[in-house]
Amino acid sequence: MNKKGLAILMRTKMRPNNHLTNFSLSPLPNQVQSNPHKSSGRVMEHSLDEAEKRLRMSGNAERDFDLVRGWMHSAISMKEMEGLDAMLNDFSKGYFSLSLENRRKLLLLLAKEYDFNRTQVRDLMKQYLGLELPSGDNAQSAGQQDDTPLSAFYYLERNLRHALKPTYEVLFERLNTHPGGLGFLSILRADILSILAEENTASLRALDTYLKEKLSMWLSPAVLELHQITWDDPASLLEKIVAYEAVHPISNLIDLKRRLGVGRRCFGYLHPAIPGEPLIFIEVALLKNVAQTVQEVLWDDPPILESEATCALFYSISSTKPGLSGINLGKFLIKRVITLVKRDMPYINTFATLSPIPGFMQWLLSKLASQSNPAEIEVAARTSGDESASTFWENILELEEERVLIESSQDFVTGKNGMEVLFKLLTLSNHEWTSSTKLLSALKHPLMRLCARYLVEEKKRGKALDSVANFHLQNGAMIERLNWMADRSEKGLLQSGGIMVNYVYRMEKIEEYAHSYFSTGQIHSSPDILRYVESKKLDDTTE
Amino acid sequence: MNKKGLAILMRTKMRPNNHLTNFSLSPLPNQVQSNPHKSSGRVMEHSLDEAEKRLRMSGNAERDFDLVRGWMHSAISMKEMEGLDAMLNDFSKGYFSLSLENRRKLLLLLAKEYDFNRTQVRDLMKQYLGLELPSGDNAQSAGQQDDTPLSAFYYLERNLRHALKPTYEVLFERLNTHPGGLGFLSILRADILSILAEENTASLRALDTYLKEKLSMWLSPAVLELHQITWDDPASLLEKIVAYEAVHPISNLIDLKRRLGVGRRCFGYLHPAIPGEPLIFIEVALLKNVAQTVQEVLWDDPPILESEATCALFYSISSTKPGLSGINLGKFLIKRVITLVKRDMPYINTFATLSPIPGFMQWLLSKLASQSNPAEIEVAARTSGDESASTFWENILELEEERVLIESSQDFVTGKNGMEVLFKLLTLSNHEWTSSTKLLSALKHPLMRLCARYLVEEKKRGKALDSVANFHLQNGAMIERLNWMADRSEKGLLQSGGIMVNYVYRMEKIEEYAHSYFSTGQIHSSPDILRYVESKKLDDTTE
Repeated sequence: MNKKGLAILMRTKMRPNNHLTNFSLSPLPNQVQSNPHKSSGRVMEHSLDEAEKRLRMSGNAERDFDLVRGWMHSAISMKEMEGLDAMLNDFSKGYFSLSLENRRKLLLLLAKEYDFNRTQVRDLMKQYLGLELPSGDNAQSAGQQDDTPLSAFYYLERNLRHALKPTYEVLFERLNTHPGGLGFLSILRADILSILAEENTASLRALDTYLKEKLSMWLSPAVLELHQITWDDPASLLEKIVAYEAVHPISNLIDLKRRLGVGRRCFGYLHPAIPGEPLIFIEVALLKNVAQTVQEVLWDDPPILESEATCALFYSISSTKPGLSGINLGKFLIKRVITLVKRDMPYINTFATLSPIPGFMQWLLSKLASQSNPAEIEVAARTSGDESASTFWENILELEEERVLIESSQDFVTGKNGMEVLFKLLTLSNHEWTSSTKLLSALKHPLMRLCARYLVEEKKRGKALDSVANFHLQNGAMIERLNWMADRSEKGLLQSGGIMVNYVYRMEKIEEYAHSYFSTGQIHSSPDILRYVESKKLDDTTE
Repeated sequence: MNKKGLAILMRTKMRPNNHLTNFSLSPLPNQVQSNPHKSSGRVMEHSLDEAEKRLRMSGNAERDFDLVRGWMHSAISMKEMEGLDAMLNDFSKGYFSLSLENRRKLLLLLAKEYDFNRTQVRDLMKQYLGLELPSGDNAQSAGQQDDTPLSAFYYLERNLRHALKPTYEVLFERLNTHPGGLGFLSILRADILSILAEENTASLRALDTYLKEKLSMWLSPAVLELHQITWDDPASLLEKIVAYEAVHPISNLIDLKRRLGVGRRCFGYLHPAIPGEPLIFIEVALLKNVAQTVQEVLWDDPPILESEATCALFYSISSTKPGLSGINLGKFLIKRVITLVKRDMPYINTFATLSPIPGFMQWLLSKLASQSNPAEIEVAARTSGDESASTFWENILELEEERVLIESSQDFVTGKNGMEVLFKLLTLSNHEWTSSTKLLSALKHPLMRLCARYLVEEKKRGKALDSVANFHLQNGAMIERLNWMADRSEKGLLQSGGIMVNYVYRMEKIEEYAHSYFSTGQIHSSPDILRYVESKKLDDTTE
C-alpha cells in the first residue's frame, strides 16, 4: 500500500458497528446519508458538485422535492439518450440531498404513479380470453403441427408482457447501465426496505419485489469477480472491510492487518459496475482444528504454520450493501472460496464456520415468557375444549434440568417453575449468571439442548428460523457442533447466551444438502446435535 | 504478435466472403457448422471431447436427436446446480453434432413444448378481471392514499408476469451465465433466423422475439468493451477480422496489416463472456478529405501523415454474429469511436462514411420491370375507376433523361420507352454499360437522381428501405453525398450500379437527428442530395 493509502486508512474511524448485525435488514437511511464511508460510496463521494450545492443551499424542502421529482420524471420519460446521463446524475445527487421524509414521499410516488396502465392490461386480457384455442385447452396439445392460429396468442402474450412491465423499470434499467447507477440502486433499495419496516405499503412492496428480482439478475454470479483481499489492496477498499465487518468488528489497524496476514484469508465479490467495493466478503482462518471459540480465531498469535493447517474456518461473512438484502450472494462465494482454497492448499480437508446464532435468545426468552405461567394457559386450554390446545403449554425443560436449575439458582432468583427461573436468570443485569460457576454448570445442558432444538426444529415458512442458520443451510452446509461459552462478548451473550455453532461444508454433499433443504426443508445435523434434540423427544414419550 | 500467432494467421484461408453482406440475415447453419473459424468459436473449438466423439460416431440420427433432446430437457428442468454446467456442455456439443433437419426439429420443439401454461395464464386473468378496482379505473386515480386494497392486484400481476415467462427462458438464462453460453445462444439464434427465412412458424417467431429481447439486454453497451484492434492482437482475433470483413473483403496479409497500420484504425466491441471475438468492428481511414471512391481508401499507398488528416472515414462496419441480427450494436460503437478519435486527434473535424447502397439496384430494377409497360397499367387504372390508381403508373425518368437515354443506347438495346431501355441496359451481361463512355454519361444523371430518391424517400414501416441507410440514420447520421462509379467491383455494380454514399456524423447533431429519425422517420440530407430529389418534384408539378 502506498503512503497516501495508509494515511487515509489511519484516519478511518475504527469503531465497532454493532448496530449492523450480519444479514440485517433495513439500516436507517440517515446512516446511509450521513456517513459516506458506509454507503455505496461511488455516487456519494463524487457528489459535491454544483447541482448538489445548489440544492443544499436552497433550504426549501418543498422546492427541493419538486426539483428531484422533476429530474426523476425526466430520467424516466426522456427519449434522447444524450442528456440522459446528466439527468440520471442530477436525480441521484438530488435524491441524496432529500430529507428522509421526502425520500419516502418520492419512493411512494414512484411506486404508485409509475407502475403501469391497468386499463390497458385489462383490455388486453379481455381480448386474450376472447381468443379461442385452436385445439384442446393447454399448451401441450395446442399447435402440434401448423401453429399459425396461435399467432394471435403470441402477439397478445408479448403485448401483455410489455404492458405488465411497470414504468419504473425504465428507471431501474437506465440506472443499471449508468456509471455508479447500480450502487445507487442498492442504496434506493436500502431506503425502501427501511420504509417497509415501518409501514407495509402494498405498492412499495410490489416495487421492492420487482427491484429485488432485477438486482438478483444483474448481480448473477457470472458477472461477480472473486477477489482475494490483501494488505496490498487500496486503502479505499480496506476501509470498507473495516466499516462493514459485521460479525467480529475490527478494532484497530493491527487487527485488520492480522486478518489479511499469515494463516488468514479474506475474499470478496466485486461487481464491475461497483469497483473497489466488495458486495460481500468472507474471512477465513487456517487452523489445525475446527475452532470452538472466537478467541481461538481472532487472537491466536503467533498463528500456526499454514502448511500445518487442515481446516479452513469461515469466521465472518459480511455483506456491505443492506440494499442487497435477500439476494443470496454468499452461496456462490462460499463454493468458489472452497474450490480456490482446496486448489492452493490440497491438505485442507475441513471447511467449517464458527457462526453466531443471532435469534436464539430472542426466541428462548419469548418462549419462556409466554410459558412461565402454566396455570393460566391450562385454564385457557381446558375452557376452549380443544384437545390440541393442551399442547399449547409445554414445559420446554426436562425434569432433571428443572430440578438442577431451581436448586442452583436459589441465591439469585425465585420462580413458580423452572421456566420462570430460567427467564429471570437470563435477564439478570450484566449477564450475572455467566460469572457463577454453579449457574453456568446448571444452565449448560438446558441452553445447549434448547439451542439445538431452536436450530434444527424451529422454522418459519419451512425454513430455519435463525437467519444465519438459514443462510448456511441453503448453501448446503450441515449443523456440526454447538460450542458453549464460545463468544462471551456482550453481543454474543445477548444473542445466543454465548453459544456459537460450527456449520460444516462437505464438498461432496453441498449440492445434495442444499437441494433437500430447498425442496423439503430438511436440515442435516451431526449425531451430537441430534442427540440433544432427541433426548427431549424421548422425554416427551415417557412423560 | 508471436511466431505461433503469425503461423496460425498464415494458414488462415484468405478468401473473399461475398456471401456475407453487411448486416445480412440468416447465414446457412451448415456454414456455421462446417467452418469452426467462422462460428462463435469458443464452444466449438473445445468441443472435440468424448461426448461429441461418441455422438459423431453413433451415426444414428434418430438416436442422436433423442439424446440431445433429453439433454436439453435436463438442462431446463434440473434443480441442482451441480450437474448443470456439465449438462449445458453436453447439450451445446450435442446440438452442434445434429443435422440441419434435426436442429430445426429441436428448435421447433423448444418453441412449442417449452413455452408456458396457457391454462394457468387464463385462470390468473379471469381472477384478475374479477377483482374490482378500489376507485376509478386506472392506475393514476387508484390508491391515492391507502393502497392496501391493491395488494391483490400486485400479487396477481406478479404471478401473471411469472406465468407469462416461457419455460425456454430458463434455458436462455442458464446458458447466459454458462461459460461459452452467450456465444452458443448467438449461434442458436442464427439457426433460428435461417429457419424463419424458409418458413414462418409463429411459435418459433415468438421464441426468436423473446431471445432477441434477452440478447439485447445482455449485450447492453454497459457491458461491451471498446477495443482498438492492432497488429499486436492475437492471431486468433485477427483471423476473425479477416473472416468477417463483409464490406471490403481482405484479400491477403499485406492488406490486413495495412488496415491496422499508419493512417488506419480498427475498433471492435468485445463482450466479457465471448473473449477474443469482437461482436462488431469498424474500420477507419484517416484522410485529408472525405473519400469518394473505395480505391482512395483501400489503396492509397503510402498513406498521408496522420497529423495531416482532417477526416476520419468509416469505410467498413461488419458484425461477426449473424445471430445478433436486429440488435443495434453499431450505434454506441460509432459514438464511442468518434469520441475516442476526437480525444486522440482533436484536429479531426469530419466523421463520415463511405458506404454501399445494397438495395438500390434491386429496388430500381423491380420498379423498372413493373413500370416499363405503361399501356397495361393505364388500362388497369382506368377500369378500376379509382383516381388514385392513376398514380400507379409513374415515369420515374425525367423527359430529358429519357431522351438522352434512348438516343445513346441505340447501339445496345431498344425498348418501348426510357424505362424499358434503362432496364435492358442495366441487365446487360458483364455490366457492359460501364465500358461505354457515352452510356456512362447518359446513365449518370438518372441513376444518381434515382439513387437519391431511393435513399431519401423509399421507406418501409417509416424507416429507410435501404438497410445500411437505416443503420446510419438511426445512429444519427445525415446523407451527405453520392459518389458516381465509386465502387466498380462486381458486387458494387450489382448492388448499386457502382454508386456509393457518404453519410456524415456531426457530433453536435447526432442525438437530434437520431431522435427525429426515430420518432418521425425524418431523414436529414445535404442540399446536393435534396436537389436531386426536388428536381423530380418540380418536374412533376410542371408536367
